[in-house]
Amino acid sequence: MFTAHPIGYIHSPFRETSAIPKGLGARHDAEGTIELLPEFGPGLMDIEGFSHLFVLWQFDRAAGYDLIAHPPTDEKRPHGVFSTRSPRRPNPIGLTVVELLRRDDATLHVRGVDMLDGTPVLDIKPYLSSVPAENLRRGWLAEAEERKDRGQ
Amino acid sequence: MFTAHPIGYIHSPFRETSAIPKGLGARHDAEGTIELLPEFGPGLMDIEGFSHLFVLWQFDRAAGYDLIAHPPTDEKRPHGVFSTRSPRRPNPIGLTVVELLRRDDATLHVRGVDMLDGTPVLDIKPYLSSVPAENLRRGWLAEAEERKDRGQ
Repeated sequence: MFTAHPIGYIHSPFRETSAIPKGLGARHDAEGTIELLPEFGPGLMDIEGFSHLFVLWQFDRAAGYDLIAHPPTDEKRPHGVFSTRSPRRPNPIGLTVVELLRRDDATLHVRGVDMLDGTPVLDIKPYLSSVPAENLRRGWLAEAEERKDRGQ
Repeated sequence: MFTAHPIGYIHSPFRETSAIPKGLGARHDAEGTIELLPEFGPGLMDIEGFSHLFVLWQFDRAAGYDLIAHPPTDEKRPHGVFSTRSPRRPNPIGLTVVELLRRDDATLHVRGVDMLDGTPVLDIKPYLSSVPAENLRRGWLAEAEERKDRGQ
């Protein structure tokens, strides 16, 4: 148990949840910035060398949680919250992989934001390796994509 | 700002930090379990369909943070904490990608743990897609690997 504090804030084009691309085939190429609080700026040393970053952030406009979620990619079928990216989670922590475009001091310009404007950032980590696509199984999401492709 | 609470605990073969494989070429294929607290078990519905999961957890045996880290993969060269996986972070949150082997009720059997035994788990999310390896740049880590390959 610990208290999570913002290290900075996201600036994104999304002012409300409905504006964020969601569901099957949604593209996540929106650009935004991560502005760290000045005292955390030195922690970004050498980050420019990484093409992609994990951003951990707070779902600060979600309250409470549900163990069963109804994701927009598969609306008719409920799934356990830990099988989804639902904002209503026991710990309101979001995770997004972004592409790092450039750095200006304590500000990172990134592509692939899916957070609301003003979202508190909790951590940034380098993206070091990928699971090869051929080794991935994606459960209900793959099934929902297949149904969509079949027009069902 | 919010208070993070455990949803469960990791059981791993690692009783102390020194036992965890670290540094260049370290393999992460240790098996372990994630045992959710019984009340969170229903949140795992449909998770069996996913081959890989993101596990968010608490560095519960690290105290305080440093903005400049000295990672074991590149000991002579300091890097900003957000360019590393150092445990001494402003928010003590760890992130590990694990392979899901099987589920028994509220217990997940996984491969790829690098957490200490007894580590509190904060969240589990499905791993949905990878950045293609050919698009990744890995900054100081790639440079350290090259130096090692050259025997420097």
